[in-house]
Amino acid sequence: MIEVIGLDGDDTLWHSENHFAEAHDTFAGVLAPYSGEGLDVVAHQYATERRNLELFGYGIKGFTLSMIETAIEVTDGRITAAEISALLDVGKKMLAHPVNLLDGVADTVAELAEDYRLVVVTKGDLFHQEQKVARSGLADLFERIEIVSEKDEATYLRVVRAMGAEPTSFLMVGNSVRSDVLPVLAIGGHAVQVPYVLTWGHEVVEDHGASFPVLARLADLPARLPELG
Amino acid sequence: MIEVIGLDGDDTLWHSENHFAEAHDTFAGVLAPYSGEGLDVVAHQYATERRNLELFGYGIKGFTLSMIETAIEVTDGRITAAEISALLDVGKKMLAHPVNLLDGVADTVAELAEDYRLVVVTKGDLFHQEQKVARSGLADLFERIEIVSEKDEATYLRVVRAMGAEPTSFLMVGNSVRSDVLPVLAIGGHAVQVPYVLTWGHEVVEDHGASFPVLARLADLPARLPELG
Repeated sequence: MIEVIGLDGDDTLWHSENHFAEAHDTFAGVLAPYSGEGLDVVAHQYATERRNLELFGYGIKGFTLSMIETAIEVTDGRITAAEISALLDVGKKMLAHPVNLLDGVADTVAELAEDYRLVVVTKGDLFHQEQKVARSGLADLFERIEIVSEKDEATYLRVVRAMGAEPTSFLMVGNSVRSDVLPVLAIGGHAVQVPYVLTWGHEVVEDHGASFPVLARLADLPARLPELG
Repeated sequence: MIEVIGLDGDDTLWHSENHFAEAHDTFAGVLAPYSGEGLDVVAHQYATERRNLELFGYGIKGFTLSMIETAIEVTDGRITAAEISALLDVGKKMLAHPVNLLDGVADTVAELAEDYRLVVVTKGDLFHQEQKVARSGLADLFERIEIVSEKDEATYLRVVRAMGAEPTSFLMVGNSVRSDVLPVLAIGGHAVQVPYVLTWGHEVVEDHGASFPVLARLADLPARLPELG
């Protein structure tokens, strides 16, 4: 029987990856005067991000630093301070952005909170994620808010124990197979994927061999819960 | 009777502010060609940091972004990409820096752990603070690691409750009167300040009117504990 439901934040409760996509568009625009034929600045940015992940972790501040680093690299240092200033503004705009819940999320979370104990499990900047939870208007519906640096098996075990539950009574719901589904299945918990229209490359796993329910939207979850436990 | 001891991380267990001081020196050196008579680039940096605190929170990634923003501002956009790249490297070097414990900390924490339940309460980047705890070699001596976005009364109440304790049985030890002492006294807990040789301007409070023990070094704590409870 499921007693505790974990919900991912970014791209499960609220839009996030679309802000990165917009940022990439602005980034490509700023670099357009320098971009030769076929230079894929977004691919460069992604490679820089991956390389910096062990220093920066996840989140928009690290993304912004990686964007500036990429801009200097791909322009061979010809980018101007004014253009770098525009990239700083991209990061600030992302951090200040209002939280836009996905369709149906507010009603669905309220409905789930009537019958289950809920916990947000989200990764990224501690400060920014706390702000997003507060701005979401959903904070009171969650028993705990767990902002974590990595979503692996050890993290989920810790969260499940902090809720006084067992993996077998825990269901995780999120958009990422890598972060929200596979580690939860690995500890003997339940997991459901609700894919987002966009997925960051780092979250993509191929050939994972696992089997789990995939729902089109969070609003479909309550009706499916009886068969998931 | 004190049962739980909270220990601040930066500048209490390990050196931190000295890395910021070194970064400021490098920063001032990079800007030296642009600095007119009497331009205090570190004061400019501090003002930028304060202004960005509500977007960035605490930590080195936000510090680095603020450093780049300041450099662009005080040079009227004349700073070069190569110089900004040097500032990015300052931030990366800070993030990658080994953890240097303060004198006597390793032995003292081990001694305290024999008789008290210990918790680290530290603010800053989640990812970087977790790395520092891991690199400190002290992680196994702590029952909990609490990385928080702000050290206020609500935060300390939450931490004390998470430890299953009461404020009256909780002692916080740290270098900052603002963050480690005053909010703990306000919830009815105990607090001791162990000042660091350097203090970030944001942590300085004047005329706080509170009274609390000040120790020269953490190693002095065990002998003073009987009279603190």
